Amino acid sequence: MKIGFVGTGVMGTGIVNNLLKAGHEVTVYSRTKAKAKSLLDNGATWADSPAEACQGNDFVLTMVGYPNDVKDVYFGENGIFSVATNQQILIEMTTSTPSLAVELGNYADIHGLQILDAPVSGGDIGAKNATLTIMVGGNEDTYNSATVIFEQISQQFNRFGGYGSGQHTKMANQIMIAGTMTGLTEMLVYAKAAGLDLTAVFATLKSGAADNWSMDNYVPRILKQDYTPGFFAKHFLKDLRIALDEANRLGISLPATEQAKELYETLVDEDGLGGDGTQALVKLWWN
Amino acid sequence: MKIGFVGTGVMGTGIVNNLLKAGHEVTVYSRTKAKAKSLLDNGATWADSPAEACQGNDFVLTMVGYPNDVKDVYFGENGIFSVATNQQILIEMTTSTPSLAVELGNYADIHGLQILDAPVSGGDIGAKNATLTIMVGGNEDTYNSATVIFEQISQQFNRFGGYGSGQHTKMANQIMIAGTMTGLTEMLVYAKAAGLDLTAVFATLKSGAADNWSMDNYVPRILKQDYTPGFFAKHFLKDLRIALDEANRLGISLPATEQAKELYETLVDEDGLGGDGTQALVKLWWN
Repeated sequence: MKIGFVGTGVMGTGIVNNLLKAGHEVTVYSRTKAKAKSLLDNGATWADSPAEACQGNDFVLTMVGYPNDVKDVYFGENGIFSVATNQQILIEMTTSTPSLAVELGNYADIHGLQILDAPVSGGDIGAKNATLTIMVGGNEDTYNSATVIFEQISQQFNRFGGYGSGQHTKMANQIMIAGTMTGLTEMLVYAKAAGLDLTAVFATLKSGAADNWSMDNYVPRILKQDYTPGFFAKHFLKDLRIALDEANRLGISLPATEQAKELYETLVDEDGLGGDGTQALVKLWWN
Repeated sequence: MKIGFVGTGVMGTGIVNNLLKAGHEVTVYSRTKAKAKSLLDNGATWADSPAEACQGNDFVLTMVGYPNDVKDVYFGENGIFSVATNQQILIEMTTSTPSLAVELGNYADIHGLQILDAPVSGGDIGAKNATLTIMVGGNEDTYNSATVIFEQISQQFNRFGGYGSGQHTKMANQIMIAGTMTGLTEMLVYAKAAGLDLTAVFATLKSGAADNWSMDNYVPRILKQDYTPGFFAKHFLKDLRIALDEANRLGISLPATEQAKELYETLVDEDGLGGDGTQALVKLWWN
């Protein structure tokens, strides 16, 4: 099949490589062309704009940085909506606001287009190994037409309802992770201050009720002082801000998530460490 | 062997049953005799005080509620220290303050007694199935003499250093769990407010980076409105207060744990729900 892909960051690169391996013709656009170089070497074709990445393709996938980038990619000059047709399936995979997903969906409905919100979890490794989880919102028919693509880039995908429900599910996922990241960080901070052997503490906590994916994956990195991003701290902060904005709109207060956001705000905005991985939160104590 | 056991709550009952099954002679004392009834039916002998539960036994295990209960059991009139000898191994398993563990240890050193702090994780199920994790502090020789008991009631045990290090490790464990409990609670609150199918969201989150033991074990209970205690909310609040007191003593600030403590304070002290399980935290939103 013919696939257009907008946004060749760490995640996009992994996904496009899997689509290329599966034998698809993939056209890519990215704001920074250098980021697409390895994909062009692997057989992808370059497009000069989101519109060009869209034209003539069966599927158009987008995975960019922030909600404003999503708006540009769809509504902007040379954006996808300037050329998309009702024969194409548009799949917006950026973790972005549920309300923007609804806005894109409503626009698509009015203009007879087909779009899904389809944010993922599983990080760079999941993108590379096609073990992502995809959380989808949008019309059921569109979803059914898109599963042929989801199968090739993920190990699990589900539709959670109409437009925005994929994004809401991703927000629920990030709220859960905010808990595990703050918990594992403060656990290490406490254990170190108490003079404990962190490797021994980690081994014991892993075997019991404290066990969690974030601890298993990030504590070994922290103990090696490896703060390279599996997932950028600045992107996690963006996600927590979206989650809390949505919570506010929904009339609920989430104080632990708010606390996590404040900690990541200090890390990213004050300490300028947004380019580190989310595990760098411990640097607030261990500087 | 001959074993004395003080404190036959949910945890103590599970542990004593395993010691009885292993063929030991067990003498039990509990503040409320009714709580020991099933154990007496299973072959345990009743003692009228901690001192009486101590006398003549090879090992004396204690697992009571709060640090003040621990003080009473050891230092009180008819307490263990009034009769303990240097031939006995004392094992204090209550989750209590590291500083009290050091106090007990120092007293034991001065009087030629042998004691360990040995709090556990794994809950009522772990106590029942002998799958607890035991976190031990104290002298190495004493620890080596006690492993014969630990083997019969747990699946993992480790010594983390001198007196108090078992309690410090347990505090690290509870700090990690504070993160998973607040995270899973706010995740559910958000997902419900967003109109998502909570069972579907849980199934998806389980498969990815948000996965954790607390979510796996408590979300299914919450979805059935089952708030019966695996672990009492009031005991978790006690643990978080100890952890934060110790953090303060160690000169570190743990804002996410502090936030978790405040939420459990509202649940236990204001709403009077300390007798529910820790998963009842969601009642702060769903009342």
